Amino acid sequence: MYSINKLKKDETYSIIHYTGFICILLGLLMLVPVSVALIYGEYHYIMPFVYSAVISIVFGFILYKFFKNTQEISLKSAMIFATIIWLVASAIAALPFYFSGDLSYLNSYFEAISGLTTTGFSMYNNLDAVSYTMNFWRGFMQWFGGIGIIVMALTILSSPSINVMRMYSAEGREERLVPSIRHTTRIIVYIYMGYTVFSIILFLLAGMSLFDAIFYAFSALSTGGFATHNASLGFYHSIWIEIAAMIVMVIGATNFAIHYAVLKGKWREYFKDIETKVAYSLMIIGTILVAVFLYNGTYYGHDFLLSLRYSLFQVVSALTTTGLQTASGSEISYQWEGMGIFVLTIVMMVGAGACSTGGGIKWLRIGILIKGMWWQIKSLLLPKNAVISHKIHHVDELKLDNEVLRLTGLFVFSYLLIYMVSVIIILFYYQNVPQVMFEVASAMSNVGLGSGLMTASSPAVTKVVFMADFWIGRLEIWPILLLTVILIQNAVRK
Amino acid sequence: MYSINKLKKDETYSIIHYTGFICILLGLLMLVPVSVALIYGEYHYIMPFVYSAVISIVFGFILYKFFKNTQEISLKSAMIFATIIWLVASAIAALPFYFSGDLSYLNSYFEAISGLTTTGFSMYNNLDAVSYTMNFWRGFMQWFGGIGIIVMALTILSSPSINVMRMYSAEGREERLVPSIRHTTRIIVYIYMGYTVFSIILFLLAGMSLFDAIFYAFSALSTGGFATHNASLGFYHSIWIEIAAMIVMVIGATNFAIHYAVLKGKWREYFKDIETKVAYSLMIIGTILVAVFLYNGTYYGHDFLLSLRYSLFQVVSALTTTGLQTASGSEISYQWEGMGIFVLTIVMMVGAGACSTGGGIKWLRIGILIKGMWWQIKSLLLPKNAVISHKIHHVDELKLDNEVLRLTGLFVFSYLLIYMVSVIIILFYYQNVPQVMFEVASAMSNVGLGSGLMTASSPAVTKVVFMADFWIGRLEIWPILLLTVILIQNAVRK
Ligand SMILES: [K+]
Ligand SMILES: [K+]
Repeated sequence: MYSINKLKKDETYSIIHYTGFICILLGLLMLVPVSVALIYGEYHYIMPFVYSAVISIVFGFILYKFFKNTQEISLKSAMIFATIIWLVASAIAALPFYFSGDLSYLNSYFEAISGLTTTGFSMYNNLDAVSYTMNFWRGFMQWFGGIGIIVMALTILSSPSINVMRMYSAEGREERLVPSIRHTTRIIVYIYMGYTVFSIILFLLAGMSLFDAIFYAFSALSTGGFATHNASLGFYHSIWIEIAAMIVMVIGATNFAIHYAVLKGKWREYFKDIETKVAYSLMIIGTILVAVFLYNGTYYGHDFLLSLRYSLFQVVSALTTTGLQTASGSEISYQWEGMGIFVLTIVMMVGAGACSTGGGIKWLRIGILIKGMWWQIKSLLLPKNAVISHKIHHVDELKLDNEVLRLTGLFVFSYLLIYMVSVIIILFYYQNVPQVMFEVASAMSNVGLGSGLMTASSPAVTKVVFMADFWIGRLEIWPILLLTVILIQNAVRK
Repeated sequence: MYSINKLKKDETYSIIHYTGFICILLGLLMLVPVSVALIYGEYHYIMPFVYSAVISIVFGFILYKFFKNTQEISLKSAMIFATIIWLVASAIAALPFYFSGDLSYLNSYFEAISGLTTTGFSMYNNLDAVSYTMNFWRGFMQWFGGIGIIVMALTILSSPSINVMRMYSAEGREERLVPSIRHTTRIIVYIYMGYTVFSIILFLLAGMSLFDAIFYAFSALSTGGFATHNASLGFYHSIWIEIAAMIVMVIGATNFAIHYAVLKGKWREYFKDIETKVAYSLMIIGTILVAVFLYNGTYYGHDFLLSLRYSLFQVVSALTTTGLQTASGSEISYQWEGMGIFVLTIVMMVGAGACSTGGGIKWLRIGILIKGMWWQIKSLLLPKNAVISHKIHHVDELKLDNEVLRLTGLFVFSYLLIYMVSVIIILFYYQNVPQVMFEVASAMSNVGLGSGLMTASSPAVTKVVFMADFWIGRLEIWPILLLTVILIQNAVRK
């Protein structure tokens, strides 16, 4: 009846043009670690970054210059751009890892996409031996990846589950998309910078060195979760550092539209928001369940406070999809097996706040579905002519229609379908079901909590599945399905 | 704004009246095993059934006589009736197990509700030692439980996910509900009886004794899955019996509205139906995945045909939610750990056909959601003014609106929520995550495939959770949530 829209030549050129722009930006950002190499005297790390920067800038410049954007980019093109850009940016951000000789190109790509999507799985065998320069690059990547995620969520994906909604209504205002992205980006960068400074100060006060404070501010605020030690944050054995990290992680996982409202003085918005309610309910229930479980085990010496401390940190890390951990991978896969690993898996799947740096299904969607269940029961009980108002409070007072509920339900179903397929593929290589379910949830929700399964020595296929999951989870599924169909469609026509 | 509808006194009386009717019916059915006891000379099993029958009939008669149905029952009342009747009927059907001294009352209740909901978990420690009379009662319970399920699904719950839909439109035709139930029941009983005779003949041809052929016809057609041996159907080591069982299980798990169409000569309906496509896709994919997994293991001696045979039978049993097994519980929990147990768990959750004797999320709902995903991608690709027809073929050519997609999404979410809570409770008692996930899925989807976790010696709390899951799964969630809210509401008002 209707033929599927192909991308017009103009649109394709615009997409390439903006891709070039991002490559140039990335190239410039690569010059920052050079100063770190100079400060710490790691001179042999200078050239890898210089080479990478030159390649990125030249490559980006060619795309930028020779593929002019002849028209304002449409929202559909913007979605396709967002889908491709993570792959391209990762390919480029991977270069310093590869040129320095630290990692193979596959592993470099893994490290880069894990960083940019703020997932946090690492391909370094021994994190304690990584240079300052490369660590800075790892943290820095997550930091600016985080900005990219928020901007993308607020403009292109819009609020999840309300996203496609907005897209429809946005078709008419195509001309305003780029200025809107520029405007949003400016505000987000200001807020994000402010929180970064705040986080660095917090980590310094908690007793970290300046380098570590900067690194973990990057890592925690972006809910990235890269660490500079094999033991992750457990290395410090410091309750203050753990508290600081939890505060920063919660900031990073909170909707930046709410941050904006709160910073504008409307602090009540935070407490009224449906996301806040979902998040704290889950945090409390999850923490108690895991704490009781750990207390009943022997590993934490039947010490309830210690069990609570480990439980709370890991649950907050999972719920904010950060992935910093105080319990080691082998602790999680052996001592936490049972309630511990199951609850963490669920909490990771639920994920963080919408329009934050976090991943997962999102607190908003879970809130909408729980409300939807309640509305459904009410509609069964009330007389037929009763009108049930489908209202939630999220940044604003929102009225939801069946369309939003349909999309939210479909999103969760799609998420679970892709999750299931990923688990099945990984099960060809690893047999420990709870561990596989845990790590795939960790990958798809961009968490990065590890139990020791995904390492540099894992089979290439499993790495590719994980990378695909980082990407799919980060893009919130639909744009990827969209791109897939377009590619197949175009291939068929040729 | 609107107050929640309380049940009127008239409606309550009608519910009690029909409950009495079912009790009388159940009492009469209890007299059938008496003839079995006479045939096999198990005379000490006669009185338990006579006592139980007398109690049921007298109790039922009191309810039936003193609580007159003064008005036609409304659909909401019918839903509440359906919700309560499984609990009451199980309490009564449990009596012979208790009076015979075979089981404690809790275990008798478990056996009865497991039978009537056609789940198939058993509280007998040693099935090989169970008397003919009690075995007959176990099989017979599943057989007429199966009829009850189909009738309920076709009239009160209607086609899943379209159920609540119909309920709305049904408000206006309250007066026709009881005649409609009578009419449907008559047709179902004829078809079901026919298939029962066919199944008995099939099992006899496959080499079973008459008693076993009758028992397994009851057990397989009702997708109940009770067995007369600890090794379930594995006892026979017969490929013919396995093939016969698979055919009967698939019949039982197929929508009886489709059966009706096929028997009326419209056999093409079977192949056109969305459920058929979902079911066979899943059967093929699931069987291959598990077969490859078993083949790679050592237990089936790297024999691909043997692996395929075990895989196919267990997958069909899971997909039809029957629960007969040729692999033992310990085989499943040890040899199948990994891909095997994971795939079976997923297949069990998906469950059987709508309006069949099977349980689970249902093939129809999965089909609707997969179609929903496809429609969503299409709507992103097509121009804004394009109209996408949301059509599926299920018994008839159906056009789905957002309402159906919303309800289907919410159903899956509710199913998973209750599943998750059940798993968490069981995890307090058992730590093996895949095994707990497997058995809870088995309980909630009324499958009854066992891995050795739920036995007569399991803690009472876990038994209660399982029974609740049988009940919730069988009623397809909404009526139970409805009843819960009404009970809370009434309690608050008093
Ligand atoms: K992360
Ligand atoms: K069953």
